[in-house]
Amino acid sequence: MPNPLVMDEIELIARLTRSLPTNASTVVGPGDDCALMDLGLADHWVLFKTDAVVEGVHFAKGAAPEKIGHKALARCLSDVAAVAGTPTHALITLALPADFDPVYVEAIYAGMKELAGRHGLAIVGGETTTNPERMLISVCVLGTVVKGRSPLRSGAKPGDAIFVTGELGGAGSGKHLDFEPRLSEARWLTDNFSIHAMMDLSDGLAGDLRHMLKASNVGAELLAEAIPISRAARLAARAGSPARPPLLAALTDGEDFELLFTAASQEAVPLLDAWKKRFPELPLSCVGRITAEPGLTIRDPKGVQPLAVHGYVHFQKS
Amino acid sequence: MPNPLVMDEIELIARLTRSLPTNASTVVGPGDDCALMDLGLADHWVLFKTDAVVEGVHFAKGAAPEKIGHKALARCLSDVAAVAGTPTHALITLALPADFDPVYVEAIYAGMKELAGRHGLAIVGGETTTNPERMLISVCVLGTVVKGRSPLRSGAKPGDAIFVTGELGGAGSGKHLDFEPRLSEARWLTDNFSIHAMMDLSDGLAGDLRHMLKASNVGAELLAEAIPISRAARLAARAGSPARPPLLAALTDGEDFELLFTAASQEAVPLLDAWKKRFPELPLSCVGRITAEPGLTIRDPKGVQPLAVHGYVHFQKS
Repeated sequence: MPNPLVMDEIELIARLTRSLPTNASTVVGPGDDCALMDLGLADHWVLFKTDAVVEGVHFAKGAAPEKIGHKALARCLSDVAAVAGTPTHALITLALPADFDPVYVEAIYAGMKELAGRHGLAIVGGETTTNPERMLISVCVLGTVVKGRSPLRSGAKPGDAIFVTGELGGAGSGKHLDFEPRLSEARWLTDNFSIHAMMDLSDGLAGDLRHMLKASNVGAELLAEAIPISRAARLAARAGSPARPPLLAALTDGEDFELLFTAASQEAVPLLDAWKKRFPELPLSCVGRITAEPGLTIRDPKGVQPLAVHGYVHFQKS
Repeated sequence: MPNPLVMDEIELIARLTRSLPTNASTVVGPGDDCALMDLGLADHWVLFKTDAVVEGVHFAKGAAPEKIGHKALARCLSDVAAVAGTPTHALITLALPADFDPVYVEAIYAGMKELAGRHGLAIVGGETTTNPERMLISVCVLGTVVKGRSPLRSGAKPGDAIFVTGELGGAGSGKHLDFEPRLSEARWLTDNFSIHAMMDLSDGLAGDLRHMLKASNVGAELLAEAIPISRAARLAARAGSPARPPLLAALTDGEDFELLFTAASQEAVPLLDAWKKRFPELPLSCVGRITAEPGLTIRDPKGVQPLAVHGYVHFQKS
């Protein structure tokens, strides 16, 4: 039996998801960004996703309540974006210490309402319960995807170009609380291009790309100079003690909530051009290519080397 | 501003659910046992429900793990039964202390899998996260109802007979961990009779009936001698110090997870007869009638008196 103290989340999930009950209407079960179900709609599947944030883990005690609410819902919506979905309904679970401040809790809700309203998402109920030591917020989202148009993690093909939206790293200094889920960007991508694989970046590019490579049974080579490094990552890297290369921050910080996706290499130039016209404010970067050979490497001026760094969770532990 | 320490769950929910974002596909939003949505299916609406259990609140630390898993899912399924729905898919969120025992967590999952499998429900994913001080399990369920056939809390009409399934009270001594959600019973009821209002009993008959009366803008008179009191409630009442009338336990203990519903009085006899043939093992009791006059009264050999006791939550505080 593995030592429970060192068993990580991925191993636990692997154990728990063995031989789960399923049924004929399940199209995509555990392991992708959302579950997808065929409930009998003509052109759409239904998507289903849940995510939780915990005080002291995902947000600091006393953080701006509207931002906590925004983050709690936006994390789920980022997963909806990853399957190019449209969120329609949400349920909110609040687990609160007995001495909760109702004004603070209402402000958390206000942050969720604002984001939900902007995306046409109805909050249709939820649950309040007790968690004596700290606040926990769990959000569950329902929505739709056009049948067969959701790029999964498993669709990356050798030769594909790898893209990321936005800039990576340093989200812990603020962006993790007020990022925008890339919903319209993801739907535009799948409406206009053949996107082979897609996911959202939550654990850092290095870690999340590994999940995609494993699901797709391929490898990848990243281009160090193409990785879009955020200003926050550069500042934080310089301020750190010991200083940390900003590239490492961009690869491993986590909580970027940007899109990671692949498309055939011949699509790369038209896609980048069309993107620039449609989303002039949001950078899109081609950061490498998918290889038939497994493994993750990075090419920098010194040559190609294996990328030893892992995702956010693992990195924190090392 | 109310004192947060005495603000109860109902008041908080009332504040939070003010002016929630909604949309055209929402048929039933917050306030009933499940949310109901019209996603475009010909004959069905989609139902959506979430519920959470917390260590030390809903189950004791170290309780039989299969039963914890059973309870976590069964609570949600009891709400699905309350709208005469069919559950189809579930997501499971586990918030765990760092020193969790993977064997224990797998056994919790086994309890959920067993119940899900028996009802044709697929577990399509979920989330694991950290809750340092105690385990919290949140379950979200999706399913379907036949359009327009879900009895809501708001449908009770003056003159209706009031029914409860099973026997009430004393669930804390064991039943709260291994009750069976009344899914097939609820669908049979709505397939064969015109059920005006329905909900599941979680806070005790006295408290839950008050919710139904308020939603329906009516009152009710209960018959003390018709309330089905469980053997567990009789034993616990006798053993208590000071001794507590078993009837009070049946009215207020909570966690019965039986069905409470109303139907026109002329349906009462045929319904009770048909029930006895279809579900010979499960008692069904007609416990009173809905009145036009608001308020909840109880008739016993001494006459009719206002029912002063409240539901489980309030009672515990008094």
